[in-house]
Amino acid sequence: MTIKDISAQIFKKQSFLCIGLDVDLDKIPKHLLQEEDPIFAFNQAIIDATHDLCVAFKPNTAFYEAHGVKGWMALEKTITYLNEKYPNHFTIADAKRGDIGNTSERYAKAFFDTLGFHSVTVAPYMGADSVEPFLTFDGKYAILLALTSNQGAFDFQTKSVDDEALFLKVIKTSKQWKNSDRLMYVVGATKTEQLGQIRSMLPDSFLLVPGIGAQGGDLEAVCREAMTPNVGLLVNSSRDILYASSEGDFAKAARRQAQVIQEQMAQFLMGKTGN
Amino acid sequence: MTIKDISAQIFKKQSFLCIGLDVDLDKIPKHLLQEEDPIFAFNQAIIDATHDLCVAFKPNTAFYEAHGVKGWMALEKTITYLNEKYPNHFTIADAKRGDIGNTSERYAKAFFDTLGFHSVTVAPYMGADSVEPFLTFDGKYAILLALTSNQGAFDFQTKSVDDEALFLKVIKTSKQWKNSDRLMYVVGATKTEQLGQIRSMLPDSFLLVPGIGAQGGDLEAVCREAMTPNVGLLVNSSRDILYASSEGDFAKAARRQAQVIQEQMAQFLMGKTGN
Repeated sequence: MTIKDISAQIFKKQSFLCIGLDVDLDKIPKHLLQEEDPIFAFNQAIIDATHDLCVAFKPNTAFYEAHGVKGWMALEKTITYLNEKYPNHFTIADAKRGDIGNTSERYAKAFFDTLGFHSVTVAPYMGADSVEPFLTFDGKYAILLALTSNQGAFDFQTKSVDDEALFLKVIKTSKQWKNSDRLMYVVGATKTEQLGQIRSMLPDSFLLVPGIGAQGGDLEAVCREAMTPNVGLLVNSSRDILYASSEGDFAKAARRQAQVIQEQMAQFLMGKTGN
Repeated sequence: MTIKDISAQIFKKQSFLCIGLDVDLDKIPKHLLQEEDPIFAFNQAIIDATHDLCVAFKPNTAFYEAHGVKGWMALEKTITYLNEKYPNHFTIADAKRGDIGNTSERYAKAFFDTLGFHSVTVAPYMGADSVEPFLTFDGKYAILLALTSNQGAFDFQTKSVDDEALFLKVIKTSKQWKNSDRLMYVVGATKTEQLGQIRSMLPDSFLLVPGIGAQGGDLEAVCREAMTPNVGLLVNSSRDILYASSEGDFAKAARRQAQVIQEQMAQFLMGKTGN
């Protein structure tokens, strides 16, 4: 998938919504627990109900791994379902991987080849050779953690390194890496003060922005600070959509919630047509 | 498992060797590829051949995930085999995980509860709330990336933050986290210049030291700089042991290589009995 493909979908659907498939068996409707694979049954219903309102789906691997082999099977079924039924959606494995070079190669193989995701989130702490193996696949992307949405972001990411914040150092350094045009960046919606500065360093990159809704981020501020002529944003919502209802109407309720966000997004897209 | 249990095993076996189970199907003996689960068959043979020479086993999750569901099944079988047959060995899921709090909780559940590892490696970039969920389990440990063995460690980890290197900032900050006595740290054997400084900041912590052998680290220097009265070291070797032979004698060859390292370790342990 190319960046242009993603932008085209955004303008077509008037949405830059990414739906996070973070499935919590304690929160899904009770009747689904009788299904052979409750996680996949839930995902399938959510995907079918919301696909026309979003451009990306993002399963977080932690919620699958918590269930061991069964969880990994649900993850595999989910990405296969997406690739077969909704091939125009951008898929993100939110896995936050990263290791020495020969090991990151295996993670890249796992998420791009074996599972078939378009992208994977990657942690920067181990530097160039831990990230570059993710950048060698045509049409695939690594989404690098820059400034995350949680409180712990202030422990290291905002600390000053050589007179600039670590997250800016990470961004600047990563732009020198091989195939850095295949990098996108995670920037939390709760960090609007820094979003403008990040955008000025990354005028052409897509930003994956988690943290609206349950975590308190503000869509208007995100758009004001970081939207480009080609949009350049994938804004994620998980819990607000997935658990809009815990009853039999959960898929409809999820659709309603996704639609609320999509309609807000359409407002911010007004007048834009892309370059 | 307690720190004392690990130290007791080290003195009993005269070894602080950790064997990294990074199984590469291109490198294992060809006849194993006919097994129903070649990865597990290989691990079982390596574990049985080397268990008395090492105190820990460390599968790296990337090598399992690369094979999707089958790989995850092999990982589950491997840790179950270890826990049932060799319950005195310390087990490390080398997974380098870390996410926002509610998500790290899932990873902790995945590796400690669902799979049953004693410890998991964790990346520090996302700060306190991304690591603390791993520290709430009695007898379980998070092994925090401090200074890694790869070249990319120089991209960020050694950069100066508030007049000290980032890896030192990570260590200092992490000591303030809740249940920080359940932290161990990853320090590459290739970074002997910094090992002494790290040890002085962490007089009582176990360090997991990868990078001897294929990556060029030196066991003697590691022991000189970082061994404590209770040893405080788990030194990892993967490729040199696993792929000592690619023929039918691979398990015997792995044992011979593990024994070479164990005998070196016994020399460095001479005269020590622990506190």
